[in-house]
Amino acid sequence: MEKLGYGWDTLHKKYPKLIYAAASGFGHTGPNSKDPAYDMVVQGMGGVMSITGNEGQPPARVGMSIGDIGAGLFTAVAVNAALVHRLKTGEATKVDIGMFDCQIALLENAVMRYTVEGEIPGPLGARHPTITPFQAFRTADGAIIIAAGNDGLFIKTCEALGRSDMATDPDYKTNALRQKHHGKLEREIEQVLKDHTTAHWLDVLAKAGVPGGPINNIKQALEHPQIAARNMLVEVPDGSGGTLKLAGNPIKMSAFEDPKTRRPAPDLDSDRDAILSYIGG
Amino acid sequence: MEKLGYGWDTLHKKYPKLIYAAASGFGHTGPNSKDPAYDMVVQGMGGVMSITGNEGQPPARVGMSIGDIGAGLFTAVAVNAALVHRLKTGEATKVDIGMFDCQIALLENAVMRYTVEGEIPGPLGARHPTITPFQAFRTADGAIIIAAGNDGLFIKTCEALGRSDMATDPDYKTNALRQKHHGKLEREIEQVLKDHTTAHWLDVLAKAGVPGGPINNIKQALEHPQIAARNMLVEVPDGSGGTLKLAGNPIKMSAFEDPKTRRPAPDLDSDRDAILSYIGG
Repeated sequence: MEKLGYGWDTLHKKYPKLIYAAASGFGHTGPNSKDPAYDMVVQGMGGVMSITGNEGQPPARVGMSIGDIGAGLFTAVAVNAALVHRLKTGEATKVDIGMFDCQIALLENAVMRYTVEGEIPGPLGARHPTITPFQAFRTADGAIIIAAGNDGLFIKTCEALGRSDMATDPDYKTNALRQKHHGKLEREIEQVLKDHTTAHWLDVLAKAGVPGGPINNIKQALEHPQIAARNMLVEVPDGSGGTLKLAGNPIKMSAFEDPKTRRPAPDLDSDRDAILSYIGG
Repeated sequence: MEKLGYGWDTLHKKYPKLIYAAASGFGHTGPNSKDPAYDMVVQGMGGVMSITGNEGQPPARVGMSIGDIGAGLFTAVAVNAALVHRLKTGEATKVDIGMFDCQIALLENAVMRYTVEGEIPGPLGARHPTITPFQAFRTADGAIIIAAGNDGLFIKTCEALGRSDMATDPDYKTNALRQKHHGKLEREIEQVLKDHTTAHWLDVLAKAGVPGGPINNIKQALEHPQIAARNMLVEVPDGSGGTLKLAGNPIKMSAFEDPKTRRPAPDLDSDRDAILSYIGG
C-alpha cells in the first residue's frame, strides 16, 4: 500500500478522520516486516503446529486457517476499538496487526508452560495439557470426549461409568495425580467404554451432568439441531439460480436482526457508481 | 446469571445503558442452550477435530484452546460494536455468543467444501486443503513449510530446488493437477530436500521469494527476533519479587501506547473500595 501511495502517512494527511487497518504477515515494524507470509507459514513459525497432532507422528496444521482468521478477528476487535476512540475523541488511528503476533497471543497456556516451567510443550493428541481426564476416548464405534474439569466431575464420571472405585483410587485423588497416571486412567476408562457406542455413553454422561460430546465430522456438525436453531447456516443466492450455504454470524446482538440470507457477491464493478458517489468522485 | 438475578432483562430495566455480553457453550437459545461445555467439547462437536491431525491416527485437538479463545474474540468484536452502537444511538445491547456457533464460523472453507461439493473433509496432516504444494516437507534434520500459493510461486520453488523440469511437467501444470498428483510431487520435493537442513532450505527459498518457514517449537517461537521487536512477550511482577512473562497484545494502534509490562493480578478484594465507589455503593 505504501508503494502504491496509499500508506497511513499519506492518507492520514489527506483524510484525518480515516481509520486505517493493516493486517500483514509480520506487522509493519521489526526485522521480518517485509517478509511474505501465508496462514501455514505463521502456523509453523508461531508454534501451534508443535503442540497439535499426535506424538511421534508427522506435523499437523490446525485444520482451520487460524493464522488468517486469528489475525482477522484481532483486526476486527481493533477496528471497532478505533471507531469507539474516534467517536469519543475525534482522533483517527492506524491499526497494525501481524499474523505472527496473533499466533503468539492465541497460544495462551503454552506460553506460560514454557516461560514459567521451562518445559517445551509437545503435541498431546486429544488430551488437555493440564487437566485429566479431559480428552477423547475410544468407544465401541468411535470416540467420545469426556471433559471432567474438576474433582467433582471426575467422581461423577466414575459413577456414570460404573467404576466408583476409581474415584477413591489414591492414584486419581487430585488432578495432579490424574495427570501423572493418565496412561493407566485412560486404559481403565477405555476398558469400560469399549462395550457400548458413543451414543450410549453420551446419554449416560449427559444424565450424570458430565460435560462431554462426540467428535463430529463437518456434515454432523452442520446438521446439529443447535446450528439451525442459532441460524448458523445461512443462504446466499449464487446469481445463477442456485443457492450457497455459508456459516452464519456467531455474533448475536439484541439491537440487530440476524438475517437468514445474505446478498450474493457483487459482480465486478457493479457498485462503482455508488462507491464513487460516496467518496465524492 | 439469570438464576442469580443478574440476567439481561433484570439488569437492562435497572441500568438501561448497560451493555451485557454473555459467552456460553451454546448461546441463550436453541435446544442445547442449557448444556455444559468446555473448550474440548465444542472442538469435538464443531468439526475442527475431524479435519485436524493425520489420516488414520487417533483424533487430535487444536493445540491451542480455540473453543474458548475463538468465542472470546467474537465476544470482544461484539462488545466493541455494542459500544459504537451506544455512542451513536444511546441504545444498549445484549450480546449472546455461543462457543459452538463460533466453531462453525471459524471452519471457513471446510463448510463450503461440504455444502457445495457434498464431500466431508478429513484430516490432511500439514497439507493445505485446496493448494499444492502448501505444506510441511521433511528435510535432512526436520521439516520445513513451503507455501507456493500460485503457479508463479510453484515455478520459483522448482527453480530454487534445482528442479526446473518439474515446472514444465504436465502433471504439475495447474494447481488442480498438483492437487491430483500431490503424492508424487511430495516424493519428488522431499527427494531434493533430504540432502540439506531446514536452515539451508529456508535460506534458499527466502532468496527465491518463496513463502515458507520452519515449524518452531514454543521456545523457538518466543525467542524469534520479531517477537521482541513487536513487544509480544511482556513482563508482569508476580507480587513476590519474581517476574512472569506473558504474551503481549497483538493489537498495535497508533493512538495508544504498547507497554512492556503489565500490572500483577490484584489480590482478593484489593479493589473493593474503588469498585464500590465506581458503582455508587
